[in-house]
Amino acid sequence: MKKPPVSVGIIGLGTIGTGVVKILLEKRRDLESKLGFPVLIRRISDIDSTRKKKIKLPKNVFVTDSEALLNDPEIDIIVELIGGVNPALKYVLRAISKGKHVVTANKLMLASEGERIFRAALKNSVEVGFEAAVAGGIPIIKVIREALSGNRIQAIYGIINGTANYILTKMTEEGVDFSTALKEAQALGYAEADPAFDIQGIDSAHKLAILASISFGVPFSLRKIYTEGITRITPLDIKFASEFGYKIKLLAIAKLTGNDVEVRVHPTMLPEEYLISNVNDVYNAVYVEGDAVGSTLYYGKGAGDMPTGSAVVSDIVDIARNIRTGAVNRILGTGMPENSRLKIKRMDDVQSSYYLRFSALDKPGVLSRISGILGAHNISIKSVIQKTRKKEKAVPLVMMTHEAREIDMVTALKEINRLAIVSGKAMYIRVENRKP
Amino acid sequence: MKKPPVSVGIIGLGTIGTGVVKILLEKRRDLESKLGFPVLIRRISDIDSTRKKKIKLPKNVFVTDSEALLNDPEIDIIVELIGGVNPALKYVLRAISKGKHVVTANKLMLASEGERIFRAALKNSVEVGFEAAVAGGIPIIKVIREALSGNRIQAIYGIINGTANYILTKMTEEGVDFSTALKEAQALGYAEADPAFDIQGIDSAHKLAILASISFGVPFSLRKIYTEGITRITPLDIKFASEFGYKIKLLAIAKLTGNDVEVRVHPTMLPEEYLISNVNDVYNAVYVEGDAVGSTLYYGKGAGDMPTGSAVVSDIVDIARNIRTGAVNRILGTGMPENSRLKIKRMDDVQSSYYLRFSALDKPGVLSRISGILGAHNISIKSVIQKTRKKEKAVPLVMMTHEAREIDMVTALKEINRLAIVSGKAMYIRVENRKP
Repeated sequence: MKKPPVSVGIIGLGTIGTGVVKILLEKRRDLESKLGFPVLIRRISDIDSTRKKKIKLPKNVFVTDSEALLNDPEIDIIVELIGGVNPALKYVLRAISKGKHVVTANKLMLASEGERIFRAALKNSVEVGFEAAVAGGIPIIKVIREALSGNRIQAIYGIINGTANYILTKMTEEGVDFSTALKEAQALGYAEADPAFDIQGIDSAHKLAILASISFGVPFSLRKIYTEGITRITPLDIKFASEFGYKIKLLAIAKLTGNDVEVRVHPTMLPEEYLISNVNDVYNAVYVEGDAVGSTLYYGKGAGDMPTGSAVVSDIVDIARNIRTGAVNRILGTGMPENSRLKIKRMDDVQSSYYLRFSALDKPGVLSRISGILGAHNISIKSVIQKTRKKEKAVPLVMMTHEAREIDMVTALKEINRLAIVSGKAMYIRVENRKP
Repeated sequence: MKKPPVSVGIIGLGTIGTGVVKILLEKRRDLESKLGFPVLIRRISDIDSTRKKKIKLPKNVFVTDSEALLNDPEIDIIVELIGGVNPALKYVLRAISKGKHVVTANKLMLASEGERIFRAALKNSVEVGFEAAVAGGIPIIKVIREALSGNRIQAIYGIINGTANYILTKMTEEGVDFSTALKEAQALGYAEADPAFDIQGIDSAHKLAILASISFGVPFSLRKIYTEGITRITPLDIKFASEFGYKIKLLAIAKLTGNDVEVRVHPTMLPEEYLISNVNDVYNAVYVEGDAVGSTLYYGKGAGDMPTGSAVVSDIVDIARNIRTGAVNRILGTGMPENSRLKIKRMDDVQSSYYLRFSALDKPGVLSRISGILGAHNISIKSVIQKTRKKEKAVPLVMMTHEAREIDMVTALKEINRLAIVSGKAMYIRVENRKP
């Protein structure tokens, strides 16, 4: 007996939408043989009607009005691919209220409105797939929620913004400065005309909010994520990092310390022999440490029509399986505050090692003044590099510290920045040494 | 309304069994909150009754007779962790025939009897989970069957034997020879007293048979897998590989070429900048290339009680979800020859580049004799290293070739090995240059 098809309505025929349509059309037969029934594209909507020409579509599938999809009782799954909070949220909530399952790649919407969405989905017994919202083609959502179900997650380190990783890779490999690398990324289409979301760590924070929620059960908490971008990183810091045996990556970190979860995005120095330190160009990778499984790493493309489309299709296939076997909500709720026993640590209380670079006059007593202030704030120095010696001119004074509290470091640096023997502001980069 | 528990019976309380029991007991509450119902260990059997002392078990759970588990109508899932084909296969088929789901870590049994097992499972509407059978804690089975469902898999490269990878890592980092590295691995408990399965590539071939089946739909075909171990690799070859910019890894390869699948296990030279080339020690990694997702890599521990236990528990959790939502056989059959449109390529017809090392007399004409024979068999040379010059004594002559057919290489080497100017047998290592 042949099972009836599952019908999909796609809102948004941009880059990802095109990838999804391509896969669903080209793999129609493969998918049917994997599932035992077909997946049909019933409708695709986009307000821009010229987009229907991007790919050869079946007749009468393209419409400009998304309402037609939401009101179509034949559609089982709404795939939301327009991005941004509005009107995506409105469409998603409408779809859910009409008993339709949802697949979305919308990290911003989930990071800020996730709780509301998942609560509505639970109430209406529908599923919300969001594999494509984090790290594109890397199946990190499935890995954490299903493959590591026997683990308490200890730590997550993610390179989850391809643009920032591309820029840092160029700066490292070619010694160019930030703005040159950014221009190259823009020329290649890896960075947008307004690159703020990528280079300021905001995009990584959206994704980290989702990862932290599914890993630690904490509510989606975008506002509580300390976020720092890569704009202040210089080739000089990359060079010094290398001398200490480190690489600099924009890292999204979520880790357990006691009953607290640290959730933060910032440039991070990592030992160069770590596998994640060798993830270059636009590639993404997520390191996950579970208490049973130990160290694991997942690597792939974080963006692009086909890699992200692959993730969207895997969600469609999963939900289609659940629809036809009557197993909706096989995997329980996400991001409900009532399930969370952990709280998010204040950034002030986070402990970290630091790389520090001062521009200091090369005079006797400078090192002792700086180290004196650090010491007074419970910060002890692990090693120092002071190379060039130019009398009475500012030279870089570089050090690595042992673990210190963030608030102590912030206070100490304020004090040091006021010293007359120091020019400009001190550079600081947090260092992670967790053994893989 | 509280859902009833899912009950598990575990056959075999060895290393993995202990890990599984530890996770199920310690994470009882976590798992219940993830699932909405408890997972109970109802019985554990092991013929060795002293093993019950390895871990604090609930009362009356341990038995020495596995039949008690198979005949217990309360047990939903049988977890087979004794390894080997017999009596594991008998237990698994009995469990299936009694309508019990099965979770197993038994790669040898699946590689040789997989078709029979999955056919029986399909007939009896039960599931067989086998995440732990390949690459321990790396969720490669779930990734390929679920996360990459929108892809046609193009290639798989796996470092899936931790012992062999440890030995090659030691040889590379410390310059020691094979037998020294093996002894070290044995002293550390990474290699068994009889290491044949690991160092001859047999264990990797078992796992590759499973990977090839779920990736390409070909039947489990252990006998058709070309298998070569690492025993003939010398520090000299590792050194030359490094001079060419390569590392040597024991690789399990399954890749699509037209309508054929290449399925082979052998030492392989890989460009040293590839991420997989930097997977060291006992760690495993699987590189998977999908036509939509592109290059992906999955990394973690391939063995050990807790990593492998983590994989077993993820299967138990998945199946428990399916039992309680009535969604058994959500994911369709594996390893059925009637589903496969691809055939396994004969090793003779495989195309590869090669690293060759001859021990040749340093006389004029030697290079031309050797290259002449290679050329006569359609093998062209890409680069040559010939360093030390000791008159009338054998010196290493090393070359890299362009792509050639395996049968041509085998034939040419036979001819060259017979030359008087060549001492000993030529060394050859296949080279993979697929762009990541």
